[in-house]
Amino acid sequence: MTTVKQGTFDLTRQLAQVALGYRSAKLPESAITVARQCILDWFAVTLPGSREECAILLSDELESFGSGPSTVVGRAKRLSPYDAALVNGTASHALDFDDVNRLMQGHPTVAIFPAVFAVAEATGATGKDLLTAFIAGYEAACMVGSMVNPSHYARGIHSTGTVGSIGAAVGVGVLLQLDEEQMTSAIGLGATQASGLKAMFGSMAKPFHAGKAAANGVLSARLAARGFIAQPYGLEDIQGFITTQSDEPIRPLVKIAPGTEVVNTLFKYHAACFCTHSTLDCLRDLRQRHALTPENVASIDIHVSALHLKTAGIPDPVSGLETKFSLRHAAALAIHQVDTSALETFSDEVASEPGLVATRNRVTVHGDMPGGSNTRLLVRSTSGEVYEGEHNTGIVETDLVAQGDRLAAKFRSLAAPVIGEERAERLMSGIMRLDEETSAVDLANIIH
Amino acid sequence: MTTVKQGTFDLTRQLAQVALGYRSAKLPESAITVARQCILDWFAVTLPGSREECAILLSDELESFGSGPSTVVGRAKRLSPYDAALVNGTASHALDFDDVNRLMQGHPTVAIFPAVFAVAEATGATGKDLLTAFIAGYEAACMVGSMVNPSHYARGIHSTGTVGSIGAAVGVGVLLQLDEEQMTSAIGLGATQASGLKAMFGSMAKPFHAGKAAANGVLSARLAARGFIAQPYGLEDIQGFITTQSDEPIRPLVKIAPGTEVVNTLFKYHAACFCTHSTLDCLRDLRQRHALTPENVASIDIHVSALHLKTAGIPDPVSGLETKFSLRHAAALAIHQVDTSALETFSDEVASEPGLVATRNRVTVHGDMPGGSNTRLLVRSTSGEVYEGEHNTGIVETDLVAQGDRLAAKFRSLAAPVIGEERAERLMSGIMRLDEETSAVDLANIIH
Repeated sequence: MTTVKQGTFDLTRQLAQVALGYRSAKLPESAITVARQCILDWFAVTLPGSREECAILLSDELESFGSGPSTVVGRAKRLSPYDAALVNGTASHALDFDDVNRLMQGHPTVAIFPAVFAVAEATGATGKDLLTAFIAGYEAACMVGSMVNPSHYARGIHSTGTVGSIGAAVGVGVLLQLDEEQMTSAIGLGATQASGLKAMFGSMAKPFHAGKAAANGVLSARLAARGFIAQPYGLEDIQGFITTQSDEPIRPLVKIAPGTEVVNTLFKYHAACFCTHSTLDCLRDLRQRHALTPENVASIDIHVSALHLKTAGIPDPVSGLETKFSLRHAAALAIHQVDTSALETFSDEVASEPGLVATRNRVTVHGDMPGGSNTRLLVRSTSGEVYEGEHNTGIVETDLVAQGDRLAAKFRSLAAPVIGEERAERLMSGIMRLDEETSAVDLANIIH
Repeated sequence: MTTVKQGTFDLTRQLAQVALGYRSAKLPESAITVARQCILDWFAVTLPGSREECAILLSDELESFGSGPSTVVGRAKRLSPYDAALVNGTASHALDFDDVNRLMQGHPTVAIFPAVFAVAEATGATGKDLLTAFIAGYEAACMVGSMVNPSHYARGIHSTGTVGSIGAAVGVGVLLQLDEEQMTSAIGLGATQASGLKAMFGSMAKPFHAGKAAANGVLSARLAARGFIAQPYGLEDIQGFITTQSDEPIRPLVKIAPGTEVVNTLFKYHAACFCTHSTLDCLRDLRQRHALTPENVASIDIHVSALHLKTAGIPDPVSGLETKFSLRHAAALAIHQVDTSALETFSDEVASEPGLVATRNRVTVHGDMPGGSNTRLLVRSTSGEVYEGEHNTGIVETDLVAQGDRLAAKFRSLAAPVIGEERAERLMSGIMRLDEETSAVDLANIIH
């Protein structure tokens, strides 16, 4: 029956209350640092991502009618906050090179930041308010992700699009200073717009999910601010988000203390699906240790979780995009010592490069590991030796200075070719001063 | 694994091929007649619907940035086809007075027509092309609905928003003359954007689902026309629409011959959720036959399917909107002889009218009927008599002339107060000449 809630948890309202607390919360310094790193990394992947075909086609479409106050990365024309979030979210996920959060079981920054950035530029919000809204949206997505997983993602639903839609609504809601009723409606509107099928992985429709999540968030919160009302139990209702989109029971809300989850962001240093990273890192180690070459490798057995296989299991990728979701192809790249941080590695030409295909055909993937980001590898050499290795890239870096250095290098190598070295440095220093002197408008003006 | 299809049905591509056949198909005269009736009824409910708060708030939001070539019913400013579809779809479902299709298990016209209308006005399509695209989208939604139901809707997902999103993509795709590859992508994009939770019933978010479906369809087909590519197995993939959003197995496509399903449209003559209609009609008959009054009715037991109870089971509605989804309230209205075709009956004031509430409290709803739109009623009078009745409003009218007369009366009573009698007559005669002399632009100009 429509109004029957399951249990008495009032999850949607509780989440709204938690979100409202962010504006007055004292966020830990580590949270501010990592949030800035998320934003730096977002610009790093979005600048080249804006040159990908999916972003160009979408921009062309939206620019044919729209205009507005919000910057679209890589384009001259500004659009409405909704349209800007849609393009920027898509562009930022186009390279599959953006950050990950395990509690959300998805990509937090590409769903949340484009939403709060577009609205912050439109309203002239301060850098501090932008950062606070981003962290609130990010951590709301994590709280929702933890309510619907593991079954949500395992079922074949792309949390980035779904949970991201709700997180983006919360982020924009915090920026717009919604009250509790409005925030509850914004969450409901985010939940009822949430969509994204993992069947789309390896096509332009995958990054589009991130764009839609961000755009849905903008629309949800802006409508709620105008008095658009949703039912207040969008998450916990028997016909609500959790029950229709997962197999999880309705559990009490596990509240996140403001700023304590954003620090668990995992950043990518390979330009492919996160589920290939443990394999890439593990095989690189084995290759160096045992002098493996395309010639002396007889076979490779990759053991990953069923989920990782489902996510990155394209056996014979035919396009650059598909290679990002192919554990077999990843293994071949590692053996051939191809630079997996370089964007050009994941091209249509490389997908069908005969040497790589030959190596790839000696790779078998098994989805028999227990959950998690662990990979176990077994390499047989042509002379009969067997080498084993195990690796887990799902471990958070605790040295934030080292992480910052690595991300700065990634940023420079990705951003400079698009906007030049001088502007790249100014953008980076602007992001590092976000919260103190820099606002969303300032950042937008640097790239415009 | 991402590329594993279930079975070898290639459902998405097959659906695309069926859709492509509509442009050359000879549509039966009955299909043209009923499609025109759908459009007439759409304007009947959308004109007053555009004055509902949800439509006004959404228009205000979208007009604050957008502009374009497509008419928004009841507004002076034209918007992009996407934004116009979003507002018009929402406005048309705001009164819960729009048509129904049982195979789709949802509301076909409010999801499909706003999409094809907005694009047809933008492209200057002929009335014939508009009608063909509408029927193609409508029947695609039915084909998809039959693949995911009964479990999709029963799970708590609003087919109008989800299946409607795919149908709208097909309709616009036919209008834009997509080729097979593009149509396959359009369907995938419609599927991966599909959303809508039944938890939202009784709030502004419910009609918003229809608007989003229409808008998703516009964006899907327009992007596909530009070369935006989705994976070609959005429906049948193990992580695709059918498997993630229903419990149904992947079955072969049951193809609909063009024009043979639109004739099964069920129109509404009560301004409330369709699941209350059998109860309203049945109780009206019993009341007339046995001279039932609020004073002589001791109790009413309503037996409906579990699905109808889930859909229209709000026991104690507090707003006009909620009363539309309350079988108990519907029963009280019937006993009190309130006009359920009048929009003003479903107001906040009527929701808490003491006499109605007193009668409502004597009503019990049981979700124990087998599936279908059947209602069985048992009324006990204060003097101890028991009256029984049974009714099914889920039966298609075969007398299309009688149906047309009834819809013309409904149209006049709803449209004339908004645009005046003279324009209402011109609009009706324009719709009746759609396919011959009238185009989308002509219809838009009449209401503008």
